[in-house]
Amino acid sequence: MIPIADRMAHIQPFYVMDLLAKARRLEAEGRSIIHMEIGEPDFITPAPIIHAGEAALAAGETHYTPAKGLPALREAIAGFYAGSYGVDIDPARIIVTPGASGALQLVMSVLINPGESVLMADPGYPCNRHFVELVDGKPVCVPVGADTGYQLTAEIVEAAWRPDTKAVLVATPANPTGTLLTLEELTALHDTVSSLGGLLVVDEIYQGLIYDAVGGTALSIADDIFVINSFSKFFGMTGWRLGWLVAPEAAVGPLDRLAQNIFLAAPTLSQHAALKAFEPEVLEILEARRVEYLQRRDFLLPALREMGFELPVTPQGAFYLYANCEAVTDDSHAFAEALLEEAGVAVTPGRDFGFNRPEAHLRFAYTTSLPNLEEGVARLRKFNRL
Amino acid sequence: MIPIADRMAHIQPFYVMDLLAKARRLEAEGRSIIHMEIGEPDFITPAPIIHAGEAALAAGETHYTPAKGLPALREAIAGFYAGSYGVDIDPARIIVTPGASGALQLVMSVLINPGESVLMADPGYPCNRHFVELVDGKPVCVPVGADTGYQLTAEIVEAAWRPDTKAVLVATPANPTGTLLTLEELTALHDTVSSLGGLLVVDEIYQGLIYDAVGGTALSIADDIFVINSFSKFFGMTGWRLGWLVAPEAAVGPLDRLAQNIFLAAPTLSQHAALKAFEPEVLEILEARRVEYLQRRDFLLPALREMGFELPVTPQGAFYLYANCEAVTDDSHAFAEALLEEAGVAVTPGRDFGFNRPEAHLRFAYTTSLPNLEEGVARLRKFNRL
Repeated sequence: MIPIADRMAHIQPFYVMDLLAKARRLEAEGRSIIHMEIGEPDFITPAPIIHAGEAALAAGETHYTPAKGLPALREAIAGFYAGSYGVDIDPARIIVTPGASGALQLVMSVLINPGESVLMADPGYPCNRHFVELVDGKPVCVPVGADTGYQLTAEIVEAAWRPDTKAVLVATPANPTGTLLTLEELTALHDTVSSLGGLLVVDEIYQGLIYDAVGGTALSIADDIFVINSFSKFFGMTGWRLGWLVAPEAAVGPLDRLAQNIFLAAPTLSQHAALKAFEPEVLEILEARRVEYLQRRDFLLPALREMGFELPVTPQGAFYLYANCEAVTDDSHAFAEALLEEAGVAVTPGRDFGFNRPEAHLRFAYTTSLPNLEEGVARLRKFNRL
Repeated sequence: MIPIADRMAHIQPFYVMDLLAKARRLEAEGRSIIHMEIGEPDFITPAPIIHAGEAALAAGETHYTPAKGLPALREAIAGFYAGSYGVDIDPARIIVTPGASGALQLVMSVLINPGESVLMADPGYPCNRHFVELVDGKPVCVPVGADTGYQLTAEIVEAAWRPDTKAVLVATPANPTGTLLTLEELTALHDTVSSLGGLLVVDEIYQGLIYDAVGGTALSIADDIFVINSFSKFFGMTGWRLGWLVAPEAAVGPLDRLAQNIFLAAPTLSQHAALKAFEPEVLEILEARRVEYLQRRDFLLPALREMGFELPVTPQGAFYLYANCEAVTDDSHAFAEALLEEAGVAVTPGRDFGFNRPEAHLRFAYTTSLPNLEEGVARLRKFNRL
């Protein structure tokens, strides 16, 4: 018997992992599976980034970097904000992290005392609440719906505020809903959070994956916002484990101190490779991929609606569709299991994203090719009619 | 003003980082600096591991792995324990982590409730106490001296035990002292800790770097010990950020759940490269490096003693000498600063390793070539005579 810390009772597994494992087993048995459950690009990392990784290996770049990351990479990230969004960020405010996961952990650990709460949208990325639980803070998962594009608003935040609330976390584009916050909405959120004495944390890891809207960054609003970003999704570098954080100047010292102690540094090779990520030849590849994601969305979204799934808000970003499935099933988890076993289609049930009517929702990731999505939709149609 | 969480008051920076930054500045100004402050091999990663990394890049291995790591790597680690130590470990108990840092964090976060204490040796690796502080546990830094080889003993643990003690952390070989625990001593520690109702965590990250003693693993003693290891030091893979944890079976589920949430997985490329780490051609390279470290120790240790530094216990592992410097200075920090500025030799003052007479100690790392060590010693001799 190993006495496990109490916090672990509040840290759930990714339920989709069991589903993924089952899908892999079925594939090993020779079954064809269409994967729409995976929150990761199907594309491999763009070739110029891979080549930069190879060059770094050949040059023997195998030692630690400074805890905040290679200075050249932090300058490249600052250059990206200047070039893409016209925002001038001091590289001193940029901390390169082991994935956005590392950035989320740093922020929550440096800000949240035991018992302090963080407001976040439900449905939302499940790890968000677990980073708060890790330091014995209280994640407050605020139910949001189609009326606000599944996002927190200034009004919702004001109503949900508690005496122990320390911060608000939003994501744009969001996982699992793919919805955005406009700069006006972010500004209103920032105003409200600031007036209540709290801090705003904005997850922008799907920033480059926006389809029929104009992108932006919360960094253009104020310099006391914590902004989290990643090389994983838009840049196609999931396995490299590399992200970054832009922090208010006053928080950089403690964040650096914690990063030194718990990470030492982000992977060196990944940092050298990422130096290429903002080069025009890579951005061209990424734009072509963005267009392909858009085509996939524009196929999958109407197909799902036609089958009776409800998506009242058109998702404009990331690579997810979060569908209300009440017209089809009253138990999304059982539905997902049956769909996998009987039809060979893997999707993620709502329970991985919180407590806000998970049984009525499914997440479809369009992280597989258009032909695969077409086959998946054909299987889903047939399965639905059974 | 950003309100920082209280725990950050207990998380110190690596003071040596300031010294390292100053050393780099002096080098940029054209000064020659001998680096004996860096806790990282000077060697780059062995070529066969680098080539495996290149092959993985060429094969497009850029996606996430399972949270516990590539099954093939976990099997290779189990094979390493069987081959090197004759210990049969179920790969299901092995979790591949982002460095030993990731493993330490998983263990402390899964075991320690706020207010629970963990006993550890002082002097010791400073991050150990910070992983406990991170989850608002209480690190209890127990002063140890030459009489016990700077290690906790069963008697010391029994005397230091408190009602809130949950676990004991030891390291063999240890940083900063380079001293070992024999299997007999580890067994006595395990018996005592178990009889007191606690858990034993053993850091074996310098396991392969042992000079005139027989190596071993705590895994041969019992299956309820948490053992932390790393590809960083012996295998020369610091920048790859890859380590592992062998856990009691009953803790694997919670550890996996937390790893999924806070890391997603260790870097993919590093894992593929590390598959080569246990191959004979790599082990041959590592043995040659071990012999070189031994030659360095056998030069540096008597040279320091001759100058008046006291090292009453011969360090038999890692690549550190932790010297009592009272005969030379009563302020190790000021001494290290002056030594760097005036003589161009960088060493780490005791304050980075705890609260046990840090002003009377310096850590010398022999992570630089023998000619560099000779030059460093010559400069130190000259500086001492001033």
